[in-house]
Parts: sequence; structure tokens; C-alpha cells
Amino acid sequence: MGRTHSNAFRKVTNFFDVPFEPVLHTVCARNEERARAFAEKWGYANVETDWRKVVDSPEIDLIDIASPNDTHAEIAIAAAKAGKMVMCEKPLGRNAAESEAIVEAVEKAGVPNMVWYNYRRVPAVTMAKQLIDEGRLGRIFHYRAKFLQDWTISADLPQGGEGLWRLDVKVAGSGVTGDLLAHCIDTAMWLNGGIAEVSAVTETFIKERKHSLTGEVAPVGIDDASLFLARFRNGSLATFEATRYARGHKALYTLEINGEHASIMWDLHDLHRLQWFDHKDQGKLRGWRSIHIIDREHPYMGNWWVPGLQIGYEHTFIHQVADFLTAAGGGNAAAPTFREGLATDDVTDAVLASAASRAWTPVRER
Amino acid sequence: MGRTHSNAFRKVTNFFDVPFEPVLHTVCARNEERARAFAEKWGYANVETDWRKVVDSPEIDLIDIASPNDTHAEIAIAAAKAGKMVMCEKPLGRNAAESEAIVEAVEKAGVPNMVWYNYRRVPAVTMAKQLIDEGRLGRIFHYRAKFLQDWTISADLPQGGEGLWRLDVKVAGSGVTGDLLAHCIDTAMWLNGGIAEVSAVTETFIKERKHSLTGEVAPVGIDDASLFLARFRNGSLATFEATRYARGHKALYTLEINGEHASIMWDLHDLHRLQWFDHKDQGKLRGWRSIHIIDREHPYMGNWWVPGLQIGYEHTFIHQVADFLTAAGGGNAAAPTFREGLATDDVTDAVLASAASRAWTPVRER
Amino acid sequence: MGRTHSNAFRKVTNFFDVPFEPVLHTVCARNEERARAFAEKWGYANVETDWRKVVDSPEIDLIDIASPNDTHAEIAIAAAKAGKMVMCEKPLGRNAAESEAIVEAVEKAGVPNMVWYNYRRVPAVTMAKQLIDEGRLGRIFHYRAKFLQDWTISADLPQGGEGLWRLDVKVAGSGVTGDLLAHCIDTAMWLNGGIAEVSAVTETFIKERKHSLTGEVAPVGIDDASLFLARFRNGSLATFEATRYARGHKALYTLEINGEHASIMWDLHDLHRLQWFDHKDQGKLRGWRSIHIIDREHPYMGNWWVPGLQIGYEHTFIHQVADFLTAAGGGNAAAPTFREGLATDDVTDAVLASAASRAWTPVRER
Amino acid sequence: MGRTHSNAFRKVTNFFDVPFEPVLHTVCARNEERARAFAEKWGYANVETDWRKVVDSPEIDLIDIASPNDTHAEIAIAAAKAGKMVMCEKPLGRNAAESEAIVEAVEKAGVPNMVWYNYRRVPAVTMAKQLIDEGRLGRIFHYRAKFLQDWTISADLPQGGEGLWRLDVKVAGSGVTGDLLAHCIDTAMWLNGGIAEVSAVTETFIKERKHSLTGEVAPVGIDDASLFLARFRNGSLATFEATRYARGHKALYTLEINGEHASIMWDLHDLHRLQWFDHKDQGKLRGWRSIHIIDREHPYMGNWWVPGLQIGYEHTFIHQVADFLTAAGGGNAAAPTFREGLATDDVTDAVLASAASRAWTPVRER
Repeated sequence: MGRTHSNAFRKVTNFFDVPFEPVLHTVCARNEERARAFAEKWGYANVETDWRKVVDSPEIDLIDIASPNDTHAEIAIAAAKAGKMVMCEKPLGRNAAESEAIVEAVEKAGVPNMVWYNYRRVPAVTMAKQLIDEGRLGRIFHYRAKFLQDWTISADLPQGGEGLWRLDVKVAGSGVTGDLLAHCIDTAMWLNGGIAEVSAVTETFIKERKHSLTGEVAPVGIDDASLFLARFRNGSLATFEATRYARGHKALYTLEINGEHASIMWDLHDLHRLQWFDHKDQGKLRGWRSIHIIDREHPYMGNWWVPGLQIGYEHTFIHQVADFLTAAGGGNAAAPTFREGLATDDVTDAVLASAASRAWTPVRER
Repeated sequence: MGRTHSNAFRKVTNFFDVPFEPVLHTVCARNEERARAFAEKWGYANVETDWRKVVDSPEIDLIDIASPNDTHAEIAIAAAKAGKMVMCEKPLGRNAAESEAIVEAVEKAGVPNMVWYNYRRVPAVTMAKQLIDEGRLGRIFHYRAKFLQDWTISADLPQGGEGLWRLDVKVAGSGVTGDLLAHCIDTAMWLNGGIAEVSAVTETFIKERKHSLTGEVAPVGIDDASLFLARFRNGSLATFEATRYARGHKALYTLEINGEHASIMWDLHDLHRLQWFDHKDQGKLRGWRSIHIIDREHPYMGNWWVPGLQIGYEHTFIHQVADFLTAAGGGNAAAPTFREGLATDDVTDAVLASAASRAWTPVRER
Repeated sequence: MGRTHSNAFRKVTNFFDVPFEPVLHTVCARNEERARAFAEKWGYANVETDWRKVVDSPEIDLIDIASPNDTHAEIAIAAAKAGKMVMCEKPLGRNAAESEAIVEAVEKAGVPNMVWYNYRRVPAVTMAKQLIDEGRLGRIFHYRAKFLQDWTISADLPQGGEGLWRLDVKVAGSGVTGDLLAHCIDTAMWLNGGIAEVSAVTETFIKERKHSLTGEVAPVGIDDASLFLARFRNGSLATFEATRYARGHKALYTLEINGEHASIMWDLHDLHRLQWFDHKDQGKLRGWRSIHIIDREHPYMGNWWVPGLQIGYEHTFIHQVADFLTAAGGGNAAAPTFREGLATDDVTDAVLASAASRAWTPVRER
Repeated sequence: MGRTHSNAFRKVTNFFDVPFEPVLHTVCARNEERARAFAEKWGYANVETDWRKVVDSPEIDLIDIASPNDTHAEIAIAAAKAGKMVMCEKPLGRNAAESEAIVEAVEKAGVPNMVWYNYRRVPAVTMAKQLIDEGRLGRIFHYRAKFLQDWTISADLPQGGEGLWRLDVKVAGSGVTGDLLAHCIDTAMWLNGGIAEVSAVTETFIKERKHSLTGEVAPVGIDDASLFLARFRNGSLATFEATRYARGHKALYTLEINGEHASIMWDLHDLHRLQWFDHKDQGKLRGWRSIHIIDREHPYMGNWWVPGLQIGYEHTFIHQVADFLTAAGGGNAAAPTFREGLATDDVTDAVLASAASRAWTPVRER
């Protein structure tokens, strides 16, 4: 994540007119040697191993948190207190209680803040939002989302340690629920409003794994798969699913919305295409349109290459920085704010609670 | 359905060598005039309006039931008692209790019997079964199925009456649960074994509709949408969904299976393609294969046209008749038997019970 | 082809209201035993080995020619002289000279006649024709067609003999030019008007093959691949290609048309989908629509199953019989008439001439 | 193009280990004001309007030419004489004669040189090359390429002037032949070897356009569409086509190769997928694999993001710079060298000559 964020800050002014010129002032990491190598590669002026010094530095205006989940709250709260703008990787906290404290801190401090739910800024997803806001879908009946990966199927994969903190429940908080479902939930609520209640099931397919730090075989605490049924506050029904055991899929985030007048489908493996069905088209000519989101009229695309030429995953981060800086320049917040990140954590908390209690569970409404 | 069945009986011997030569002896329907027109179009020798006379006729060996769901039990039981072979449209009964009585009758009578879950005999689906039976998938982690239609979105559509009995709960028993989900469940258990428990939600989006027979606006009793989470007896997790409110989809039945070594996807809108991912392929060459099921080596296809040329929906019924007659000729049963149809009804009963109780509900194990 | 034609005559009245009730009177073939088996399977009343007797029979109204290409002219001319309706497999003759004689005969006799260019009656292709006739494409700039197969790549495949007459130049007249390109050309001229001139190249990749009748290795006389550039009379430019050496394609007939306002794509491997791009759609929503041709509003589909359920290859022949009988009942001709079949042969003659002379060659305009 | 090149030089060291650290020393353009704005946006240290001063500067090691085609020869030759490394946008010259002079200059000077045929470095295309080099396809029978755009269909579009020099024959040399077909030809010869002869046709659909500089309506000198048949030196047959009149396609560069054992398809609109058919797969499981080129084992992809996350168009330029610098660091040339660029110009010259003479035309073999 350090690379995607650094790349975004480094490139944003080449393609977008923003009111700030980002300066890569300091990279902070526990391992000094690696931080130094990173700084050299990316052009950071300074290296630091103690994040508190970074937060306290008067030369720094914006703190960007890309460390493991269990560090988010402490750093974000300190940064807010120091009056810095704060950006934070998702999920905001390991649970809603942590996130609530973070939200309180940034709102009290009045500092611009944003969670890196970057998929909102895939141009195709942004256009889906436009179409919904234009009222083209009418009443919504169904929402479906899934996020399928296959990288933890091998029983030989250790848990925890270098590059594997996502498998360690103490660091990550949860498994796919906080990692992958959180993305699906953030987008879903942005597009379709709040979720009222959920019925969930989670599973840990491989019950024990060697821990890479201790070398001991230990029970796996994270969820490998997490599925839930949901009812949105607007009455629509939904299925959500995330797993790291779907052979053949590397990062297949898909979403579908069925409305009275029109339907939408999108998936991350063909991220530059929006599938669109409009019942208002002439009867015999109705069909799913594969809209190739590569034209100047499409969100963000006027800033890139000539029509027909694609951008990729990393560009969603650049769009996010561009929007954040633009909003911050005008004293405004750019979504998803920390408060929106908290709303997502309210849902993942409900999902985990429902999976534990085997009962339909309401989502906290704030 | 009368047309698809008649077409199947009429064509089967042109393409398959079967031990019986079907004779279209009698068509039976309540409306004599329409039955007569149908008989003329399809070459039935006789017309009858009282199904009991057909069941009692010594000239008739096989009773094929394609009437509304509320008539299945009575006719099937009588046919079994009369010693006829019996084929019945799905779902077998309006609920498991009805189906249980039917199963008892045919098993006591020892007559060949089959439910028309025709999608098992889409060549691509049959091949999916072969691949699973060959052990190519390994341990199964996930199953997904949905059946999406959009023909009842208009609030002006009446319930009940001519061509609309599927909207009348008294005749149909349930809405999409018995109509569409039943197909998904039958295939799922064929491919992945029994279902242990479910958590379901159903919804009736349009609460009242004019009844086409009485002309009065009345509450709608059927479910418009039905979704459930499931745990199979083999430990895999599943989502199932059926709806008639998915704009843009006419009959999009899809299924996906993720196994340890390989994954499968199929959908009814491209019914002649099986999507196959095999992790054992060389690393850099792994990818989803779109296997076009139009070659002589594929199930049933050696009986049709030269490679590359497709068959359609109606052919699944012809395959079913061919398999039924072949099995019956050898004194054997061809799946799905009525007992298998009952197993599906056990699941739909659990789904409806879970939706009512809002609790995880075990599926009866017989 | 005997099966597809018989199936069409046998099924047409089950699905279409036509002014004639086809009776399968006589099947004629050189091998009596096989003819008899075929008659039994398909319900023909009589068997004959001398086609002249069939042509002379006063009980027969329609002669359907599905024998190898070198027999078309003689039979068709005799049938016309006998006052029969005549249907003939494509290509009409082995060259335009043969076809011209056939056309003269049927036009002099005034009998209904039709060439079995069945792909015009794929519902998606018929709808393409409707869209063009409605003027939706505007000026046409480009046409592309190809027909790719892979069944003759093996050098061990013999030429000639049972089931392989298409590899014997004496019987077939040409290789893929008359077999596959002829289909492409017929559709192209139906959709886009006459072809003015061509520049072609043909190739025989395997130069010698064992002849299955003589057992001797002999030079291969047919073309394995045939490609040409064309200029249509309306000024549009085209590429055409047919081959039996395209690994991975069983019967991939594709066509594309690019007009000023809209474009069309279609392929035989997904024969029930028409790809449609309309520049008049709102800018940001422009995209290729995958129109699933399975709704009542689509050509021919109101006669088949409920929306969403597909038909297959064989149905194009049923459509052709339905249209032929309907037209004949009103004393009209149904396209493609023999005269249209001759026009296609004029193009294939020009293609072969151009390949031989290596020069742009005009197509005869009649 | 200035942006894609600058972006590549600026990013390459963030993702690749190369033996040089590119410094953006000077941007040169005729319009000083715009050059200055560009320099500021991209971090160039200096601005220049006279390219000769840049070529003569002792501080500069590498000259990158991204100016209109009519300037390539003069600048490239001067840069070579000055001993600079030279990179040049495609096509190298406006014709083979110009390119020949450029090649002589760089070879005489012994300086590293490369033409920006960037599509070779789409990871999927690079992998196609690997598969061919591994001998997986066997004897090649067919090659197909097309490059379809639709941006000049409007008759109101002026020729020449700001952003439109590609429509001005004096500047561009040719229309789509040098612009789009050149890409197709470069890739084709890289993958399938030299082209022996061609038969071509070109067309200018809109005969006159207003010239944006003079304001006068003048004949259009460029080709709007260019199609040709080809025979490769290895005996395979090909169709090539490029046009700016294919409604619905922004930059649809597609290529297909059919070999004895396997086939490949790729297109620029889904640039991260390679379609692969291997006849050696088990019979019933043969199918086209959609290989998603987003895994660490795929060319270049180990340097980017985690598996499943895509890169875009601009990355092909970064790959090109990385390969160029790596080769140059070792004193080697990285393909496509100027000599390879000349070979492509030999083909485009033959295409234009054939279109003019209407005769099959041999390609010069050097």
C-alpha cells in the first residue's frame, strides 16, 4: 500500500489541477533499513521509525496511514490532535468502537479526513453512482456483491509475519470481513444507502496454520469466508460474499444492482467496463451494454489519455488524492470520510455478531 | 410445458436409440376445444378432459403430468396405483408432505418415475457433473446459484388466471421458491450433495394485485424473491437467490462451484458453454476456459449436428425422455426420481420456514 | 443435411401456421439400405434410389436436393421441368455456369425455388437485416466476414469418400470458397448489396492426401483457405476469409458492419446474440449492446418458447421451410431464390479467378 | 505523446531496477509558452524551442523524438551524429527512404536506438511472443490484425492544424497506414516473421475537408482506411485492416494467430487478457482460455501490484524505457531498433504501392 499511496501523491499534479503540491516529506516504518530503501526509490526527503515524531513535525500537513489495522486508531487520533489532515487505509478501525474514537478525534479537531476505499474512484463505479443519482434505476429491488480471491487455499501458508499480517486476527481484527467485505459494503452504501439488518455466516476452512513468527501450529482466528444476506433501509434485498477460497479468482470484486427501470453490473477484473441495461430502450433492441469507460465524457477520463486507452488499478488512488486535495483546498471534506468508514465498520460488526449468534442482527443506526 | 414435452416425445427416436417408440396417445386438459387444437397440432390420437379416464386407460403406459402444481399429487398417485410409468413437472408437490405421499405411491407400485428437472441435461451441466465425479475439483468450498427473471416487475400484471397461475399462491404453492429456486436446488444437490441448513429471506415487492379471475385487488401470497445462505453436508458454503425482479434478465440461471483444484461456472443464457478453471494448468497459462459444448465428445452432442452447431432449450427435454426410456427399458430408474424431487422439496420447505421464523433451519434428512 | 431438412419438414407445423402440411413422401439415395434406415428413423413413406423416379412422381409436389454439389444441376433442372417446387442445398451449382442453367429452368417453369442459405434465418441475422432496412446504420463503410473451422488440419485425413466429398474437388467444385465463403457472401449481399470487385488469395496447406476410395496419395485440388478484399457497389470496403485451418474454431462464422451511425457484430458460436452499437445513444452511455435474441419481439421467436430460452442451429431450417411454404402458398418466391444463389456463385467464381490471376477481378453484374 | 513519454521516464525507477537514473533535463517544442507549462507540470529543468540546441547540449545523453512524422529524420540523424542515444515515435520515417537514412546514421554512430512501438510491451503481447518462441503453436497458418477507430467519421472535422496533423498528408506521410497499420505490422513481424508480399486497397471516404490553418476546403490526401492481404515468408496467410471509420471502436487493435497446435487472440480494449487455445488439452476440456495477465508469473507483472490488479496503457511505455535502459547499460540494443522500424516502413511502402497499382507487391527484403 505504501507504493500505491506514494505513487498517487507523486503523480497527481501531472494529471490533475489541485490546490496543493504534495511533497513527499517523510516515510515512517518500524524497519529503518527498509524505510530508507523505500524513501530512496520514491524520493522521500526523510526517514523516520517513530510515528509520533512524524505526527509532531510542524513541517508536515498531512498524515497518511498505511500500516496494519491495529495501529490505525492510535496514529489517527494523535494526528488529528496535532491538527493534521489524515488519510487512513481501510478498514478504519478493527471494529466500530475503535473507529468511533477516531471519528470523534477528527471531528473535534475539524481536520480533513478520508478512508482509502479506493474502488469508489474506479471511473466505472463513479459513473454507476452518477446514473443512480440521476434517478435512472427507479426503485431498487436487489443488490449483489462479492469479492473472490484464492491466495490462502494452500494449508502450507503460514499465518502472521512478514506480508501475512492479514492472516493474524490480533493484527487484522478479522479476516475477509474487514479486508474484502468492507470494500463491498462501502461501495454498496454509497450506491444504495444504509443497511438495516444482516444474517451472516463465516467459516475458517483451514483450522490451524503454523505461525510464521513463533513457528508453532496455532488455531487460525480469522474468517476465511464471510457471507451475508441483507436488507437495505430502502427495502432492497442483498447477498454479500467474500472469500479467499474461490479458485480461479485473484481479485474478483463484482457488484450488481437491479432497479425498476435499469440494472448495473461491474467487476474489478474488467474494471474499465460498466454493464448497463436500460428497460427504456426500444423493446427489440434492449440488451446489456458493455460501456467501455475510456472516453472523455467518463468520470476522471478527460485527465488521462486519448479515448480507447485504459488506465489501471493505481489510478483510483490518484483520483482519491486529487479529490481529497481539491476538497481540502476549499475547506471541504471528500468522501469517504472517517464517519463513512465508521458506518462500514458498523456493518462488519453486525456481520460478525450475526455469524456468532446465528440470528438476524440489526445494523446500528447513528 | 405441453409443447416442450410433446416435442420431446415426438423427436426422441429421430436422434436417440431408445427401447420404446413413444406414441402420442391422448392429450388431456380441462378445456376440450383447446385440447383438441393442441392434439391436432402435435398429432395426438385422442383428446380427454377427465384425467381419471386417461389414468385408467389400458392402452396407456406412461402418464406425463404438466398441469399446475396443485394437481400433481392426485394425478401422480392415481397413475402409480394404475401401474403406469409417471413423469411429473417440477416441483413434485406444493410441499414435502404432498411429495412424500407421491413418492410412497410410486415406490409401492414399483413404477419408473421422474421429475422434469430438465437443466441437469443441458450438456454443459451434465459435463460439470462428470468433472466433479472424476474428482477434479477436490474439496468444495463454495457453491453459488441464482435464477433471475424480470417478468413480474409491472404492478399492472394481474395475479392468477390464464397463463398466470404461477402468481396465485393457492395453485403454485409458493412463488419463485418452488418455481425457480427448486431448479437451482435440484442441480446443486446433484452436483454437490445434500444441504444441511439454511437461513432465508423472502419478499413480495408488489403487495397487492388485481386477480384476473375475480377482478378484485387482493394481497399477493407468493414470494417475488427468495434468497438463502446454506451449508452443505460436505461443509461448503452457499448463496442461493431467485427473483422475478432482476431487470435485464429473462432466465439467467447461473451456478458456480469453487473447489480446491478447480472451479466451474455455467449460465443458462449461454447454455452451451462451460467455464472451467483448472489450477493444475501451468502457472502462467492458467485461465478460465470457455468450453464450447458442441463437440462429439461432449455429453449428448454425438447425437446431434456436426461440431460447432448448437442445440437449444428444448433438447434438454429430449435428453430426459431418452434417458428415462432407456432406463425404463432396462427396468431401472433414471434420475431425478420422485425421491430426489422430494429431497428438493425438503429444502424449499426449510427455506420458507426459515424465511418465516428468521432462524437458521435444518433440512430434513431422510 | 438430410437430417436437418427432414427435421424441418417434420416440425414446421408444430410451431408455424403454414398453408401446406408437409408429408414426408419419399427419401431418395444411392444406397438403398441406408435410405431405408433413414426413412424408418424419420417416417418417410417410401424409399427410392433413382432420383428420376422421384422427380416424375405425380404424388410429389416438392423436390428437396441435399446431395453432393455435382448433382444439383441435373436434378434441379429435371424437377423444374416436371413442375415441382425445388429447394436446393448451397452452393447452387459448382460454378455460375451451372447455376445459370438451373435458374433458367426454374424461371421458365415458374416454380417456387429456394437455396438453403439457412443463416439468413438465424433470428439475430434476420434482425440485423431489419435494422439495416430501417436505415439505422446510415452510409456503410466496412463489412467483415469470416468462417473459421479446424477439422482438416491433420495431414492424415484422407480426401474424398464417405463423409469426405467436400475434400474432393471433382465433387465439391471448390474447397472452402464454395462451402464456407458462399455462406458469408450470401449474407453479405443480402445485408449490404452487390459486390463490385475482389482481390483474392487461396491456399492448399496440405498438398497431397490419400484418396479414400482409390487408396492412392494424390494432389489435393480444393482450396483449404480463401481470403479476399472486396469493394461493394455501395462503396464500402470488405475483408472475407474462410479456412479449415483455424485451430480452436469449429464453425465460427462472424460478420461485422460499420455504418455512419451504428455498427453490428454477430457470430455463429453465440448465434442468439446480436452485438449492436448505436452512436445516437447518449455519449457517456454508448456501448456495445449484447442483445439476447430470445424475446417475443425478435424475429421468429414468438413461435418458440417463453423469453430467455434459446433455440439452436436446426431451427434456421424450420424457419426457412416456414417462409418458403408461406410464400409458395401465396404464389410468391421466398428468398434466397435460385437467382440469388447464382449471384453468390458469380462472386465465388470471381474469387477463384482472382486467386488464379493475382489481379483485382470484377464480379459479373446481371 | 509527450505526456506518455515523460510519465515513463519519471516512473521507471520507482518500479524497475535500471542502470540509469533518468533526469528530465529539457523539453523542446516550437511554442515556448506551452513548452514552459509542460516543463512545470512534469518537472523538466529546462525549456528549449530549437531542437538543434538540445541535440548539441553536452549535458544530454538521450534524445527522445515525439514530434510529428516529418521531423523525425532530421532530428534523429543529428542526434545520432552527436552521439546521443535516440528514441523515436513511430513510424520512424514518412517512408522507407527516410527511415533508411536514419538507420544508417544510428548504425554508423553506434548509438542505442529504439522506435516506440509500445504495444510489444503490453504484458499479454509479450507473453504471446514467449509462447510462440517456446514452439507451442507449431506451423502457422493464419494471422489477422486490425486497428479500428471511429474519430474521423464526421465530415465537419477539419484537416491539419492543432492536434490534427495526422489528417494532413504532408506532415503525416500517410493516413491510417503509417499511423495504425504500422503498429499491426510491427507486432506481426515480431511474432510471425517477415512479410513477403501484399495486395492492398485504401480509401478516403471523406474526399474534402476544410483545412484548419488556411480555412480552405481542400482534397484530403491521407488514407482513411487501409486493408491488405499478405503472405508471410513462413507461408501463412493474413488479413490486415486499419480504419478510422469503424463506429463503436475507439482503439480496437486486435490480433489472432492460428497455428497447427494452438491459437492466440488479443485485443487492446481488454489489453490484460490473452486468449489461448491449446489443442493438446484433453479433448472434452478444450476451450479458449481467457488468461488474465495479472499474476507475478506474467511478463513485467512482478514489478507492479499484487495479483489481480491491472495496469494500463501508459505502462507499456514504462516497460519500454526499462528495457531500453537495461540494454543500453550493457551496451546492447533493445528491440524494436530503428532497423526494425525500417522493416515496418518497407511493408507500409509496399501497401501504399499496391493500393496505387492494384497489383500484388513484394516487400523489399534487406
